[in-house]
Amino acid sequence: MIALSSEVAHLKRSVMRDLLGLATAPGIISLAGGLPATEALPLAQYHECMTAVMQRDGARAMQYAPLLPSLRAWIGAYMRSRGVDCTDEQVFITNGGQQGLTILSRLFLDPGQPAVIEAATFTGIQQVTAGRGADVITVPTDLETGVDVDALETVFRKHRPRLAVIIPDFHNPLGVSLCREKRERIAQLATQYEVPVIEDDPYSALRFMGETLPPIKAFDHDGCVFYVGSFSKMFAPSVRLGWIVAPAQLIPKITVIRESIDLESSILTQSAVYEFLSRGLLDQHLARLNAINFERRNTLIDALETHFAPMGATWTHPEGGLFVWVTLPESVNTWSMFEDAVREKVIYIPGAAFAVDGGFCNTMRLNFSNTQPDVIREAVARLANVVQQTLEKDAVYGR
Amino acid sequence: MIALSSEVAHLKRSVMRDLLGLATAPGIISLAGGLPATEALPLAQYHECMTAVMQRDGARAMQYAPLLPSLRAWIGAYMRSRGVDCTDEQVFITNGGQQGLTILSRLFLDPGQPAVIEAATFTGIQQVTAGRGADVITVPTDLETGVDVDALETVFRKHRPRLAVIIPDFHNPLGVSLCREKRERIAQLATQYEVPVIEDDPYSALRFMGETLPPIKAFDHDGCVFYVGSFSKMFAPSVRLGWIVAPAQLIPKITVIRESIDLESSILTQSAVYEFLSRGLLDQHLARLNAINFERRNTLIDALETHFAPMGATWTHPEGGLFVWVTLPESVNTWSMFEDAVREKVIYIPGAAFAVDGGFCNTMRLNFSNTQPDVIREAVARLANVVQQTLEKDAVYGR
Repeated sequence: MIALSSEVAHLKRSVMRDLLGLATAPGIISLAGGLPATEALPLAQYHECMTAVMQRDGARAMQYAPLLPSLRAWIGAYMRSRGVDCTDEQVFITNGGQQGLTILSRLFLDPGQPAVIEAATFTGIQQVTAGRGADVITVPTDLETGVDVDALETVFRKHRPRLAVIIPDFHNPLGVSLCREKRERIAQLATQYEVPVIEDDPYSALRFMGETLPPIKAFDHDGCVFYVGSFSKMFAPSVRLGWIVAPAQLIPKITVIRESIDLESSILTQSAVYEFLSRGLLDQHLARLNAINFERRNTLIDALETHFAPMGATWTHPEGGLFVWVTLPESVNTWSMFEDAVREKVIYIPGAAFAVDGGFCNTMRLNFSNTQPDVIREAVARLANVVQQTLEKDAVYGR
Repeated sequence: MIALSSEVAHLKRSVMRDLLGLATAPGIISLAGGLPATEALPLAQYHECMTAVMQRDGARAMQYAPLLPSLRAWIGAYMRSRGVDCTDEQVFITNGGQQGLTILSRLFLDPGQPAVIEAATFTGIQQVTAGRGADVITVPTDLETGVDVDALETVFRKHRPRLAVIIPDFHNPLGVSLCREKRERIAQLATQYEVPVIEDDPYSALRFMGETLPPIKAFDHDGCVFYVGSFSKMFAPSVRLGWIVAPAQLIPKITVIRESIDLESSILTQSAVYEFLSRGLLDQHLARLNAINFERRNTLIDALETHFAPMGATWTHPEGGLFVWVTLPESVNTWSMFEDAVREKVIYIPGAAFAVDGGFCNTMRLNFSNTQPDVIREAVARLANVVQQTLEKDAVYGR
């Protein structure tokens, strides 16, 4: 018998991925995924950009190459426009946002050491903390203002964690965004307690209403906040590009971690994405994408109002992003209800799939970005039936 | 002060990368890199394939997606044609060969545990073993038949390492290939001592002479050899695609490690590469690429014969791949000579850059794939001057 590493024992497959397998079954409506609207992806324009790069830069785009300086500079300018005081040299390009989390976790965290994350959070964040054998401590998140900063301070003071990971905008799975005061205070706590705070921000460009807020990193004056961005949701998942903003003196260490993982990002893809950005096409793409998302979000919220409000459910009202978080009456268990939902040909992600240390049994995450409005309405009607039946069963059996 | 992980302390930047920075200085001839011949990269054909995919599969190629089944099947068939008994389900697609090494190292190795690698080996292999805090044990490699299998068996028996990493064909940096008997015996030792042997094989498709041998994995009947392949050298570096062949029951664990690192590989790139392969274009590409490599390798060997043989140098005679390994008289130190070489406008990689635990001071790795034949001749003439001057200095100062 070949022995496996102890890390493999910690690392859990994201349950989501298994559930998403169901999404392809015939007739199933899925509100489970986290995919952008396929019809909004800028295919024709990206193809033109790809062609321009291949015709202009020829075979060099197929070689090995260091980070593309022009893409770094574009990202640097984008971050400065969002209030972050950084140079282009502080930008490091990654293979999507998840690789940014992986690199920073390897930079700061040793197995067995404390790390603090939100009690319900993206499974990829769990994989780079608990999944690497960290001693994970959780803090609750308020559904209107974001992570509980008092709880965060207590953990910082008591445990001096080796890192914290926070999602600032349109939280996955909760849909909530951090209020300005909390952003400021998190940056200040990072400095005060010398805890590196990783700000995982794949969604902020997906705002369709409300006031745009600067990232936590914009309030950081001491290099204690590490920003992780991604082109997956604001542009297209298959470009597999994201970025880190970190103090310049840590970029060589970040570079060597990256090099050890998978060497580098495709210079062809970097060049084609930069071509798209330099042609000024991003704003119109985001306007179109967010208009689609906004209509779908409103449709989902309206349908919840119609079908879910009478059952005593509540939900978050995201101002952007991809997800709404629904809290059902306490007696409903969204895991055990899942089979009934599949039978009714509708799926979602049970909230417990995001729970780091249990709980959230009566919650679910609903995605609105990748489903047409009329189908969203149908999905919510079906889901309401499933919940209603569950509540009636409970009433009959006195559960 | 924010604390860094203990891993960061182990992980060394590949010195090569620093040296490669010099390659861009004006007038410098570089035999230092490991790049394929840029003019051989199949740019126009790949562009056609990319266009076909974007026109046919539309926006789906820009979304999230699981591994592309047709590419897995192509790789499965390719491996079977090379004598490996495997199903398509045993093939896992990675972000280049380095990510295959990373994933397998995380699957088997815990920090502090023994791992065995060759005494002079690719820096990326050092990064996934020593760089992850392993207790690294080295074995010597014979320059005509490959790794010393008796030494390997001794290490297996005494230390029961958690993994071994071996380069079977056109070794980086040594240029040597394992003879058939050693391949067979390594597979048998893996089973006997239950040590997972990782076969890092980015180069085997680059054979331009001699007998093609099956990979070590072809002699493995018990799932103890783990094959790592790459499209970087046989197709193009910027596609960032490689693969692992592993027992089917380990694929779910490999999948979750990959998911935690960076989720997935670009479905667009996978589709475009598969399009190229399914059009049957690989064979003609490899024929062209290897003809170019062969001519350059012969030019390099000829020039060494002319300029280096009189100084008592020896070198390997690779039957494929990218590199020749030169051993100079013992008094020559290729590190300290490097500045003189830069002054003469020619660079190489000092052998010590590949040395896991010291030594190899009088050796150098020369790349032939990415330099025109007449430039190779000029480079070797310049290098010979530098070595000659070093030898004369030694004679004068009695070093």
